[in-house]
Amino acid sequence: MSLQKINLQNPLVHCITNYVVANFTANGLLAAGASPVMADAVEEAAEMASIASALLINIGTLNDRTIKSMHIAGKAANLKGIPVVFDPVGAGATNFRLQTTMDILQQLKIDLIRCNVGELAAIAGVSWQAKGVDSGVGEIDVAKTALQIANKYNCLVIVTGEQDIITDGDRVERISGGHEKITKITGGGCLLSALCAATLASCEHRFEGLVSLLRDYKQASLNSYSMIGTFQINLLNQLEYLAGGFNDSTNDSGVR
Amino acid sequence: MSLQKINLQNPLVHCITNYVVANFTANGLLAAGASPVMADAVEEAAEMASIASALLINIGTLNDRTIKSMHIAGKAANLKGIPVVFDPVGAGATNFRLQTTMDILQQLKIDLIRCNVGELAAIAGVSWQAKGVDSGVGEIDVAKTALQIANKYNCLVIVTGEQDIITDGDRVERISGGHEKITKITGGGCLLSALCAATLASCEHRFEGLVSLLRDYKQASLNSYSMIGTFQINLLNQLEYLAGGFNDSTNDSGVR
Amino acid sequence: MSLQKINLQNPLVHCITNYVVANFTANGLLAAGASPVMADAVEEAAEMASIASALLINIGTLNDRTIKSMHIAGKAANLKGIPVVFDPVGAGATNFRLQTTMDILQQLKIDLIRCNVGELAAIAGVSWQAKGVDSGVGEIDVAKTALQIANKYNCLVIVTGEQDIITDGDRVERISGGHEKITKITGGGCLLSALCAATLASCEHRFEGLVSLLRDYKQASLNSYSMIGTFQINLLNQLEYLAGGFNDSTNDSGVR
Repeated sequence: MSLQKINLQNPLVHCITNYVVANFTANGLLAAGASPVMADAVEEAAEMASIASALLINIGTLNDRTIKSMHIAGKAANLKGIPVVFDPVGAGATNFRLQTTMDILQQLKIDLIRCNVGELAAIAGVSWQAKGVDSGVGEIDVAKTALQIANKYNCLVIVTGEQDIITDGDRVERISGGHEKITKITGGGCLLSALCAATLASCEHRFEGLVSLLRDYKQASLNSYSMIGTFQINLLNQLEYLAGGFNDSTNDSGVR
Repeated sequence: MSLQKINLQNPLVHCITNYVVANFTANGLLAAGASPVMADAVEEAAEMASIASALLINIGTLNDRTIKSMHIAGKAANLKGIPVVFDPVGAGATNFRLQTTMDILQQLKIDLIRCNVGELAAIAGVSWQAKGVDSGVGEIDVAKTALQIANKYNCLVIVTGEQDIITDGDRVERISGGHEKITKITGGGCLLSALCAATLASCEHRFEGLVSLLRDYKQASLNSYSMIGTFQINLLNQLEYLAGGFNDSTNDSGVR
Repeated sequence: MSLQKINLQNPLVHCITNYVVANFTANGLLAAGASPVMADAVEEAAEMASIASALLINIGTLNDRTIKSMHIAGKAANLKGIPVVFDPVGAGATNFRLQTTMDILQQLKIDLIRCNVGELAAIAGVSWQAKGVDSGVGEIDVAKTALQIANKYNCLVIVTGEQDIITDGDRVERISGGHEKITKITGGGCLLSALCAATLASCEHRFEGLVSLLRDYKQASLNSYSMIGTFQINLLNQLEYLAGGFNDSTNDSGVR
């Protein structure tokens, strides 16, 4: 339903994201019916964010230049009330990522943090064994910690995993289903964060809109189940299919 | 026919392009039989351009460092008479992109501008409602404006859309056909610009060569019609097929 | 066999690589069961390399900032005894690349150089006609030159081509087979270098492990034979298949 709303609204999503997943993210947003624009120059960050319907900040391949752009774009978005999604990729992997994450959370108004449990633990200052940008292993009460972070930063928090958790600091919803194969391709979480940004720009009721998106995304991953190379192609097809962007009965490519 | 000439000539195309489409562009050039080289370091921009058969400048994810490289590479190419294709991605989206675009047009000898109608309007200073890096909507006499720009900068101009227009400032040719699905994947226009560069390096008669390429590309997009994920894969396959690079009757992958 | 060992060990591979192949490399590592992390900020290069199981340095789209990161990461890896693979993309194409290559070889302890014959010639100072980042043509005794370089830098050397050659400065092994189509997609060599890094982190006997990997990769390329767009997807599927990461008899996507 959220994917269909994105397809109807066609929001312009300004992405400051990593170069590993930029292409996949752009195609995933297009599949859902959104318009992606990737732009990370300091000189245009504010202007691009100002004309966008939503802003995505993803620190996957951050550097000193793009961090500046993240702050400039974020402030411009805040000023105009444009929703900002933050994906703190690998927040627990290095001190540099953690420091950048905390700076962003303290200096910008973030509408939604979309992270995995390892990144949540890093933000919360909880001990956790992250593995690079992957989730890692450890003991944590995910829902409780997500609630704390949502209240501390006055934002929505989505923690994805076998079971997704979303909270606005008050309500907590859990979404099950999907297929773990989504964790075996690069950019599965990054693309979801971009779709969250499109959802915030397209759905009047944010919490319900995001819950619906998480269900759609679980469904898409389940329907895409395949070997890795094929999976990433299927996922784009599935997003287009669920968004209602492909109604051609003469074509049977990849949709099962 | 142009794709076949590219396949025979195997030109080395130096691409300074955006990181969103770099992989897709490289594979698309390879599919057509060209050799791509992506290089945007200031320190090697001149040398790399000098050994190339053509240079592509694409400002999709520009920054202060790569803008310098664009100018250095462009001057080196101009000095050696190597054709330069310019793709002013999102020229109308921000002042920074427009300023960069005008600087490039004024300081370099560009052989071909390949753009969408929104970018053409921005270059011509015509009022237009662009949408990020997408074409947007507005009123403009595309052929007339393209002619003006071609004459002003003494170059070829290709404006792609439902109907492509190409002009050398004198002749105007229109190419119809294709499938609009090409606008639903990221990099469809960027890859075409790269193939234009390969064409300028491979075809003696530039105008006719480009007209032929535009027809080939329309054909490839039509043949690739599918859902988004599959479409991008089909398009690479189709380019290889139309370039004559794949003649194996034992294999039926993706070509219809 | 090496792919299966990677799948068992799940090594974290820190990649400082080019933006053209970053996505493909990440998915290829995931297909084999490794965990990729792409990170090239100067501020975190040392810390990220220190927590990794192996480091890949690839100069495909080098710039002054990332070269600094390569040295910082390399030194950190050396300090902790973490294996370092070096892919000198286009070493013979420009003076800047050659200088960067020689600096890396002189200032870092490299465990493995993975290159094509044109890049080998550049490192050895042998006359050769490279073509951008492609291999090019010329006369060279590949095995003899590889042996010299292996001894000079006290490292393993792999030179890939129709016949792959691997040497530790003493033994020389040749691996035939595969399909030349692998040279028609972008990143075929870059991904192999990343898999070499994963192999050094996963196999006790380095030389044998790499020989096995080269055989696996030849097999994967042969099994993936198809048109270009489909080939790159097949290759990821094949790597997953050969790594033993996909055992689902109900799914037949792309594996032949």
